[in-house]
Amino acid sequence: MSEHPLDAIFHPRSVAIVGLSSSPTARPTGFLAGLLDQGFPRDHIYPVNPRATEVAGLPCYPTVLDCPDPVDHVISIIPRTGAADLLAQCIQKRVRSVHFFTAGFSEVGDPALAAAERTMVKAARAAGVRLIGPNCMGLYVPSAHLAFSAGFPKEPGHVFALSQSGVNASAIIDGLSARGVRLSKCVSFGNAADLAAPELIGYAAADPESQVVVAYLESVRDGRALFEAIRRCARVKPVVLLKGGITEAGARAARSHTGSLAGSAAVFEALCRQTGALHAETMEELHDLTVALTTQLRTVAGPRTVLMGNGGGFSVLSADALAREGLDLPELNEATQAVLREHGPEAGNSIRNPIEAAFVDGPRQRVAEIVLATVAEAPGFDLVVTTADGPDVLPPPRAPGDAPPPPSTLPVQPPQLVVAATFADVQDRTGRPLALVRRTRDHNPADGFTVQTYRRGVAVFPSVARAARTVALILRWRCQHEGLPPLV
Amino acid sequence: MSEHPLDAIFHPRSVAIVGLSSSPTARPTGFLAGLLDQGFPRDHIYPVNPRATEVAGLPCYPTVLDCPDPVDHVISIIPRTGAADLLAQCIQKRVRSVHFFTAGFSEVGDPALAAAERTMVKAARAAGVRLIGPNCMGLYVPSAHLAFSAGFPKEPGHVFALSQSGVNASAIIDGLSARGVRLSKCVSFGNAADLAAPELIGYAAADPESQVVVAYLESVRDGRALFEAIRRCARVKPVVLLKGGITEAGARAARSHTGSLAGSAAVFEALCRQTGALHAETMEELHDLTVALTTQLRTVAGPRTVLMGNGGGFSVLSADALAREGLDLPELNEATQAVLREHGPEAGNSIRNPIEAAFVDGPRQRVAEIVLATVAEAPGFDLVVTTADGPDVLPPPRAPGDAPPPPSTLPVQPPQLVVAATFADVQDRTGRPLALVRRTRDHNPADGFTVQTYRRGVAVFPSVARAARTVALILRWRCQHEGLPPLV
Repeated sequence: MSEHPLDAIFHPRSVAIVGLSSSPTARPTGFLAGLLDQGFPRDHIYPVNPRATEVAGLPCYPTVLDCPDPVDHVISIIPRTGAADLLAQCIQKRVRSVHFFTAGFSEVGDPALAAAERTMVKAARAAGVRLIGPNCMGLYVPSAHLAFSAGFPKEPGHVFALSQSGVNASAIIDGLSARGVRLSKCVSFGNAADLAAPELIGYAAADPESQVVVAYLESVRDGRALFEAIRRCARVKPVVLLKGGITEAGARAARSHTGSLAGSAAVFEALCRQTGALHAETMEELHDLTVALTTQLRTVAGPRTVLMGNGGGFSVLSADALAREGLDLPELNEATQAVLREHGPEAGNSIRNPIEAAFVDGPRQRVAEIVLATVAEAPGFDLVVTTADGPDVLPPPRAPGDAPPPPSTLPVQPPQLVVAATFADVQDRTGRPLALVRRTRDHNPADGFTVQTYRRGVAVFPSVARAARTVALILRWRCQHEGLPPLV
Repeated sequence: MSEHPLDAIFHPRSVAIVGLSSSPTARPTGFLAGLLDQGFPRDHIYPVNPRATEVAGLPCYPTVLDCPDPVDHVISIIPRTGAADLLAQCIQKRVRSVHFFTAGFSEVGDPALAAAERTMVKAARAAGVRLIGPNCMGLYVPSAHLAFSAGFPKEPGHVFALSQSGVNASAIIDGLSARGVRLSKCVSFGNAADLAAPELIGYAAADPESQVVVAYLESVRDGRALFEAIRRCARVKPVVLLKGGITEAGARAARSHTGSLAGSAAVFEALCRQTGALHAETMEELHDLTVALTTQLRTVAGPRTVLMGNGGGFSVLSADALAREGLDLPELNEATQAVLREHGPEAGNSIRNPIEAAFVDGPRQRVAEIVLATVAEAPGFDLVVTTADGPDVLPPPRAPGDAPPPPSTLPVQPPQLVVAATFADVQDRTGRPLALVRRTRDHNPADGFTVQTYRRGVAVFPSVARAARTVALILRWRCQHEGLPPLV
């Protein structure tokens, strides 16, 4: 593994949390709960609070200076007024990094507070200490057992996420997790006073554990550096950018949120085009693009689509949704239709495109498998979109007080596993990308079947419109990026 | 109640189902289950099957002619080959209407089968018998205890739905039910061989039980009649139209589905503009528009929006989503800001617009109530969009084999009821429309809280983007329809 300067920041061996509640018996919450949930070594977590000797069963220290050596990383949850003194202690203790969850600096819009932020950055830099934030959630690195909240997946993956917003960092992690995607690292970096997007994207580009980079950005403070970082990164791995504050109203919200001066939609669109990044307009698009980029759908080379589904009127609206995004549904050729006719229903037109088939129990299941294999090999097509999914997967019973279980832990019944394996087998054998639209009865976009199918390399989407939009964005990007013929 | 000629068709007192499975012990399924679930009188349901004397505990008759008099309505689930003979018996029995679930006519694309369909229509019309279909699901009329499937709500409501597609009829019923909306009537009418959209829309216009009309259409066979029917209906109640087969690919799918020759998107858009109908591009838009049209959001008179929410980066993206649909987020005036400053957090900017507030337990709940009441009275605004919703409502435990419970039956905890009542009270008192965005942890767009809030007259949406899009569509429609100033 290449030794990037930020590697050490993302892999601390010890963490002090300053400002934890002083109750020794309280159940751990927030940052402490996140570390314990990920299995960070308990004897390398140092609660700091002058009014306590024990927090949640861990020895508590009056100040950072009293913690056992070395303290690699400090999480500050104290009020703003104590931040400068804490930083001075951290410098004295020779920590590597301080993450200020502490807010109330440049984002408030008060010049004195912005100046205080700058002063802290200057002091930290002079001492070689890196700052994350202020006004953010900090680090989630499953391979380093770091998380800012309990309940995040413990398995590491290959997606690097950066987000100025803590809420949106959680939305990236939760939304991707529910679809089966796992992250290598996520950093919520708030006001970006010291560690900012260009440097983080540079690290993501160099990180061998990260194959896709996704970012939620609000500020574009150093536009040139950001542009260069994205351009370099996008040369070696796909980059998905979601920009907050892209409208005037959003920009005002962003200013009060992370003190960011936002640019316009047109400027950002141009930045994406010129750097080779993918531009997500919404959080859902960021999720969808990430799913596509981590499955075979990433290789989709053109718009010619076979639509396979069940339900007449639903197929009609699905065809409209695909066409609205510029995808084509040409008719299958005679040879393919002849194969389908052997297995299909009476109505002759439903074997042209779209195709009717359903993965239900019994003999129709076998027919659907044959239909899928046949259309996946049909000449002159670029992908198969199927709205014929497996039967519903029902969540396990839970008591009224229980939290919903993470989708990856949902039980999957054998018939669903058979269908998931069928999709993967056909995609692997034919090399033709599939996009599966999952229609659950309770309108839940993610469930165990979704996760199981995704884990086998098949992209799964909660609606035809979102699948179509994602394919269109991937095609546009591949076209700009890799010299494919333009979409009609 | 005015005596429209179709009233009797929608309120049969006896129903024969022809072609039911002959097993006397099998659990009722399909159409029979739908009738029993709705509480249709058992002694007025006549199963017909020459090979059985009893079906699901009901006496079974060899032919329609053997059923007790009178038989008002006949549901045919027999194969196509027996359809003409069945119709002849129905004419002899002097039934009012025959619903052919039976498919395989004009939708197949075979001229001989299309001719058979026309011959049946001619025979039925000569005898004064109306046909529904063929190739459709028929009637759902809760006030008449009719349904084509078990599990539909038994309470009648005020939305009339018509759909050529059976799958989309179910999607309309299920999608609206989950949001709390109830229907007066729904008819799935397939190939529209006899009863077609113009006549059905005319009936909906005259029906005093129906205040909003929603339609999924595929064919525009008699364009002039359809245009006139929609125009007349839209003069007296809102009409929402979703057109399938609006693209070339969708049109091909529609042709094989209901034998429809579809028109282009531009033609249909013009039809909506000229008739005063609302044009839904997707099934989700049809649901969203119906929610808006049955709540106070229907009265929204302009684009000036207060956004109230929790979560910095989420508010930024929410503001972007609103602005992208043409809504404005002007700053609140000084007087309103002064009131908010008394109750709000330190960060001064978050009281301008968007506003930060959360309906959580404890003192913050009271603050959120004050903030909502304050912004709802702020001068110069047209609506409040709030992403600050109630806490999660967790579904009751269920066994792995159980179906998901209907959202309206989900338990709602007292804190959620308080929040739902707060929204309704503020909206009622100020007259300012609210749009609530419900963010559930399991991404379920509908739950008990959603339903409870909607039932109090507040529009609830599953995302900011969908709320914004709906408001934009309502404003554009009101502007064309009622002479409001145009949206900038």
